[in-house]
Amino acid sequence: MSAAPARAAPRTPLAPAFVETLRGLFGDRLHLGEAVRAQHGASETHFAAAMPDAVVFARATEEVIALVKACAAVEVPIVPFGAGTSVEGNTTPVRGGVTLDLSEMNQILSVNREDFDCTVQAGVRREELNLALRDQGLFFPIDPGANATLGGMASTRASGTNAVRYGTMRDAILSLRIVTPHGRDIRTARRARKSAAGYDLTRLMIGSEGTLGIITEVTLRLWGIPEQISSAVCSFETLAGAVDTVVQTIQLGIPLARVEILDDVQMKAVNQYSKLDYPELTTLFFEFHGSEHAVKEQVAMVGALARDNGGGEFRWSNLPEERAKLWKARHQAFYAATAMRKGAIGWPTDVCVPLGRLAECINETKQDLEKASFPAPILGHVGDGNFHVIFVIDPNNPAEHKEAEALNQRLVQRALDMDGTCTGEHGIGLGKQHWLVRELGEDGVDMMRTIKRALDPKNLFNPGKIFAD
Amino acid sequence: MSAAPARAAPRTPLAPAFVETLRGLFGDRLHLGEAVRAQHGASETHFAAAMPDAVVFARATEEVIALVKACAAVEVPIVPFGAGTSVEGNTTPVRGGVTLDLSEMNQILSVNREDFDCTVQAGVRREELNLALRDQGLFFPIDPGANATLGGMASTRASGTNAVRYGTMRDAILSLRIVTPHGRDIRTARRARKSAAGYDLTRLMIGSEGTLGIITEVTLRLWGIPEQISSAVCSFETLAGAVDTVVQTIQLGIPLARVEILDDVQMKAVNQYSKLDYPELTTLFFEFHGSEHAVKEQVAMVGALARDNGGGEFRWSNLPEERAKLWKARHQAFYAATAMRKGAIGWPTDVCVPLGRLAECINETKQDLEKASFPAPILGHVGDGNFHVIFVIDPNNPAEHKEAEALNQRLVQRALDMDGTCTGEHGIGLGKQHWLVRELGEDGVDMMRTIKRALDPKNLFNPGKIFAD
Repeated sequence: MSAAPARAAPRTPLAPAFVETLRGLFGDRLHLGEAVRAQHGASETHFAAAMPDAVVFARATEEVIALVKACAAVEVPIVPFGAGTSVEGNTTPVRGGVTLDLSEMNQILSVNREDFDCTVQAGVRREELNLALRDQGLFFPIDPGANATLGGMASTRASGTNAVRYGTMRDAILSLRIVTPHGRDIRTARRARKSAAGYDLTRLMIGSEGTLGIITEVTLRLWGIPEQISSAVCSFETLAGAVDTVVQTIQLGIPLARVEILDDVQMKAVNQYSKLDYPELTTLFFEFHGSEHAVKEQVAMVGALARDNGGGEFRWSNLPEERAKLWKARHQAFYAATAMRKGAIGWPTDVCVPLGRLAECINETKQDLEKASFPAPILGHVGDGNFHVIFVIDPNNPAEHKEAEALNQRLVQRALDMDGTCTGEHGIGLGKQHWLVRELGEDGVDMMRTIKRALDPKNLFNPGKIFAD
Repeated sequence: MSAAPARAAPRTPLAPAFVETLRGLFGDRLHLGEAVRAQHGASETHFAAAMPDAVVFARATEEVIALVKACAAVEVPIVPFGAGTSVEGNTTPVRGGVTLDLSEMNQILSVNREDFDCTVQAGVRREELNLALRDQGLFFPIDPGANATLGGMASTRASGTNAVRYGTMRDAILSLRIVTPHGRDIRTARRARKSAAGYDLTRLMIGSEGTLGIITEVTLRLWGIPEQISSAVCSFETLAGAVDTVVQTIQLGIPLARVEILDDVQMKAVNQYSKLDYPELTTLFFEFHGSEHAVKEQVAMVGALARDNGGGEFRWSNLPEERAKLWKARHQAFYAATAMRKGAIGWPTDVCVPLGRLAECINETKQDLEKASFPAPILGHVGDGNFHVIFVIDPNNPAEHKEAEALNQRLVQRALDMDGTCTGEHGIGLGKQHWLVRELGEDGVDMMRTIKRALDPKNLFNPGKIFAD
């Protein structure tokens, strides 16, 4: 059962000679057994599994090049795979072939403290990177929740809780090392903070979901750990009050580092799952970065706005443990939601609308969800106009699946009607292919297809993604 | 005489039937006379002129589509033209054809105050936009100095004095309306602040210098006019002291809105041209944006850093007239430089390096310039690692041209050796084509060419730019 059934094209098993080639390249890092293949074919969310024919674990760009050349010679697809935390079926190998697991490419290659950048292999995960940077007073802010790999985050143009202040992966990447479908090794840019040198290959690769090139190294902008970090939490009687607080904060130019909304349903789930006792009302989680004075001023201003919009107590704190508690609860929100029902799975949606339409969009969505026959908490990165609903459904109940699908259709249509996008940060993958056409028109998507055909004429890189058959 | 001689391919005059088609489309907005053609074939800087065969002034996207279809039918090139302020020969019609002047597409189509965005026709200039926005408490920060059109700024991925705080055109554009080489009308994105919907067509078009699509509308992010704006100016005994002040400021995370360096030679030129009496030493111009308290704190911190690095009096002011004086002087720097010698022209260079290498790069450049036989002031957007030298040369002296060329070669090589870029914000145009290959390698540029061929198979959109013959 699936919103976007895995359209597995008929295919033949891998030729023995090709398997021997892979074994020669990867030795015992070639996996043909069902367990490893199944693990790389499963989805975190509601997509049907589809097995790759083989899984290889690469450790160097040179191995990726050799793999690409071997696959190209016999026209076998390649699906790059990081932490497997994407949620639109982005890594599901719907055409089989080889899944290239990059998680063992986990070396931090250089940290340039003076330049505020670093270069990492694509399989480095964001939490490990931040642990390694901490001693140098640096951090990498982009935080999609899951402990994803940097290569995966680049591939889906991820963002998350800090994007309101620090931007998305689009903004935080200086350069990529990629392997093309012809097995060429390209560095898309140098390390300068800005450049006007020809087409923006870096941005073309970011968000292309492995369909144009395989990212093997990522050069990231870094930031200094702020002098002061404070967090705050505030509950609201009405959803509109919470959203208006955020919109007014942004409009005043107050540089929030993070601001997340969790509705009453999500707060109940969080309390249960994380053993917390927050009021079960629509709630905002905040984080403020800056000098001591600047943070104090920001907290006071936002606190006043919250009060004006019917917020309850504005509980702020400078304590790292308070902050950790808050963000741990936020990061577990997806698992907390799915834990609301035994045996349920979570289907996270993802829309983003212009800021002035956000309250209206969330309100209408909330009303639509009132009729739902399953829990459907709302949470989101409201400072960007981006929010999610998590449909907590029984995977064995087709009626619930159909109902979720209809709710999602209405949600995305609502966002498009407000000149928003069908995906703020999860990507197109399998789940949003038809919406991409609705959002940008046939001509826009045709321009993308033209680029895909030109760069990957045999359609071997993550085939079946982004573009509908 | 030219650093990059206009490689005018042999061509035939426009066919009479095609001219009649153009006249039918544009009436008296079709220009065949020498004066208008010459005006569109000249360069602001050191590039040889090359005449278009015709100039048309469009007023609507529909006219651009009709023009593209007419030109495609007979394979006549089209060169889009905004304010003509680009400096790498980006609009020089080296293959002749039709120059499409977009300056009459100067309507502000919508301002969405609540969403902090606006949509303008491509020919709107940035100063006119800011005048129109002021009453609503909004502004558009990107400021390349010249009063360029927004379409032109998008095409060259412009940035300038505010980029250290607000980013470049890459960051400030939400969406573009473009006409493709096949005459299709595409909107590259919706108005959401972020999106993960397929390939980033918006970023692919930004910086593509009219070679992939003709930009007819631009949707821009806007910002609220800050509560407090202060400016400051400070002279330094040494160039290193000035650069170190900036680098330390950035490293401390102090959110400067603008920071510009002008060396002793440039300050002398500015004083003469703008009738000012600044000390003729390396000087930093600053601007601070924020709340009253935040700006006060920033000014104090940066003032202290300047003192530590041998800065003189840190003259700061909240007065708009002081600020206007400062930025007028900065904006006239190019004209001030060329005015240093009667009959001279200015050749502005443009490199950008990782922040930690900036002092070294500027210092080595300054030493190299000491031997120059003409004035060569340095100025730049130091907060981004980006700076320019202006070679003030006699256009009729081939030896000076050759000398400037050699200095420029050494400058760009120095920047590349430091993992920087051959152009921070001016683009490739005619002047940096070979450097693009040195910067990204044959494979990187080949990927760009593949995209160009796929989207513009007849090579009709601004041919001869970005890619060397």
